[in-house]
Amino acid sequence: MNGGTATNGEGAVSKPPPTPSPLRSSKYTTAKMRILITGGAGFIGSHLVDRLMEEGTNEVIVADNFFTGTKENLKRWMGHPNFELIRHDVTEPLLVEVDQIYHLACPASPIFYKHNPVKTIKTNVMGTLNMLGLAKRVGARILLTSTSEVYGDPLEHPQKEEYWGNVNPIGVRSCYDEGKRVAETLMFDYHRQHGVEIRIARIFNTYGPRMNIDDGRVVSNFIAQALRGEVMTVQAPGTQTRSFCYVSDMVDGLMKLMRGENTGPINIGNPGEFTMLELAEAVKELIAPEASYKITENTPDDPRQRKPDITKATKLLGWAPTVSLHQGLPLMAADFAERLGVERKTD
Amino acid sequence: MNGGTATNGEGAVSKPPPTPSPLRSSKYTTAKMRILITGGAGFIGSHLVDRLMEEGTNEVIVADNFFTGTKENLKRWMGHPNFELIRHDVTEPLLVEVDQIYHLACPASPIFYKHNPVKTIKTNVMGTLNMLGLAKRVGARILLTSTSEVYGDPLEHPQKEEYWGNVNPIGVRSCYDEGKRVAETLMFDYHRQHGVEIRIARIFNTYGPRMNIDDGRVVSNFIAQALRGEVMTVQAPGTQTRSFCYVSDMVDGLMKLMRGENTGPINIGNPGEFTMLELAEAVKELIAPEASYKITENTPDDPRQRKPDITKATKLLGWAPTVSLHQGLPLMAADFAERLGVERKTD
Repeated sequence: MNGGTATNGEGAVSKPPPTPSPLRSSKYTTAKMRILITGGAGFIGSHLVDRLMEEGTNEVIVADNFFTGTKENLKRWMGHPNFELIRHDVTEPLLVEVDQIYHLACPASPIFYKHNPVKTIKTNVMGTLNMLGLAKRVGARILLTSTSEVYGDPLEHPQKEEYWGNVNPIGVRSCYDEGKRVAETLMFDYHRQHGVEIRIARIFNTYGPRMNIDDGRVVSNFIAQALRGEVMTVQAPGTQTRSFCYVSDMVDGLMKLMRGENTGPINIGNPGEFTMLELAEAVKELIAPEASYKITENTPDDPRQRKPDITKATKLLGWAPTVSLHQGLPLMAADFAERLGVERKTD
Repeated sequence: MNGGTATNGEGAVSKPPPTPSPLRSSKYTTAKMRILITGGAGFIGSHLVDRLMEEGTNEVIVADNFFTGTKENLKRWMGHPNFELIRHDVTEPLLVEVDQIYHLACPASPIFYKHNPVKTIKTNVMGTLNMLGLAKRVGARILLTSTSEVYGDPLEHPQKEEYWGNVNPIGVRSCYDEGKRVAETLMFDYHRQHGVEIRIARIFNTYGPRMNIDDGRVVSNFIAQALRGEVMTVQAPGTQTRSFCYVSDMVDGLMKLMRGENTGPINIGNPGEFTMLELAEAVKELIAPEASYKITENTPDDPRQRKPDITKATKLLGWAPTVSLHQGLPLMAADFAERLGVERKTD
């Protein structure tokens, strides 16, 4: 009945998903699947494009406004007959005939999403509305990359999907946190109201090649600072924890969720937990033994700890991360070194 | 720094409010104030119109789409030279030259806001965006009626404004709860980003004449059932509590907030707490001694208790409710009896 725990909304589903027409009855089983990826020029999006293109049986359409994504991330596929890139801002409607929509479009790093908080909310709300409208219109399945930020500064640890979160509605991070929460609401309302097939992934911190070098995230910060010979800046107190998922694991989880039968929300992330100080030490050990770090002031509402409970992903999707932080950090550092034009002393 | 308690966002305000032009330098002190009320044909909105019109020094413009509001509520002012009524849906932009905006427009009763959840979110998000855009453009001060629903099923009792809430992001009530939370976010982002003068009231259950008779809210349900000679239906378990604020007190609080110097959010509500069973008993005693009640099934995510901490309203606005439930219920019943065409046996 009522209570402090979540209902996932499943009980209220009254309409069945639309019956596939004979013309496209094979759309979730065999080739050729037409797949739209919003934000596909970004960090995670471009790795997802790689995987889907490498399967050889998909047509991939990327829609991106290039606010944080780059064409550089997709140069490998430019000109490929199964690939198309559209300059498009999801706050405007888009009509393309596709079978699946991976809706990733949104600045995900605080320095970018705080740049224009109102635009961040519009991207989450109108962007998700537009993509849901498209999914409804063409009968596509849609996956939203929500975020561990919906848990805010969690009072439960690790975070299960049933946890409702502890989010400041009026703080400087709220545009992203509340924007993603209401995007989830919209997904479920379209599911209940219109029978749209939805998938929601709550993705936790992800790292790997192609991250924006100067986006202010802790892994990219530390690696860039270490490679540049700068002092790594650890936000106080340094004992706050994060879990870091390597991007290939993340992409694998998103694809399993899209292709499975569960709406979610499902946490996708690596439960391995590290303090900021441990991360700095790992960067020092693996990438730049001569590096040093200092403690700096923190930003408002920075969560003290965040760690996914991935029981659902493991049970329902058969997914678990396979790349450890000690394996992933050097792969990311190699990419950063190349882009920064830095010769690595440890190579 | 970081933490489990709220920052109210005040620390991040970097821009001063726009300087009033000489043409309108007196806009917050003397006549003639031009005031827009969205949702002004609704229950609380129309009482606010009455008060502002009775002051005699205001021009009042009401914008309403009449989804839950009625012209009947405003008939007293039709044709008055200081009054104007516009049929307008706030999900579309509106441009009128005003000094203050009371932004009330949104279905507030579960049976109405669940009717079309996607529209409810659009009303909260695009409606608030449009009104903030108007406030920015014409230099108006804007007050949002947020809601105690932003606290969800609260784990703290009574609720202070600093409490971040316990809200299900994907339930059947989320369209309203999360919609209002993100409306608050938008208000603060416009305040921080554009210097718009904002006021946020978190209003708790309100009752009085002109409530929709069949809107499914507990006070109107009980009174209508009692007057019709039906059995009052108390949702299980009946021990869940609510606080009920008489509408004249609510309007007084909103006006004090608008005219004061605090952005809020500030709780406006009556801290007197009643269980549903006590309310049914009060209706029986005051309105229909022969009435009876039965326990019925509850709706998902119905909060178990809700009670405002009004310390801020008292200290900052000098406001406190003055009408008790035992005074207010008979006033509401008289209005309901007239509209239902019921002759009251206790008169």
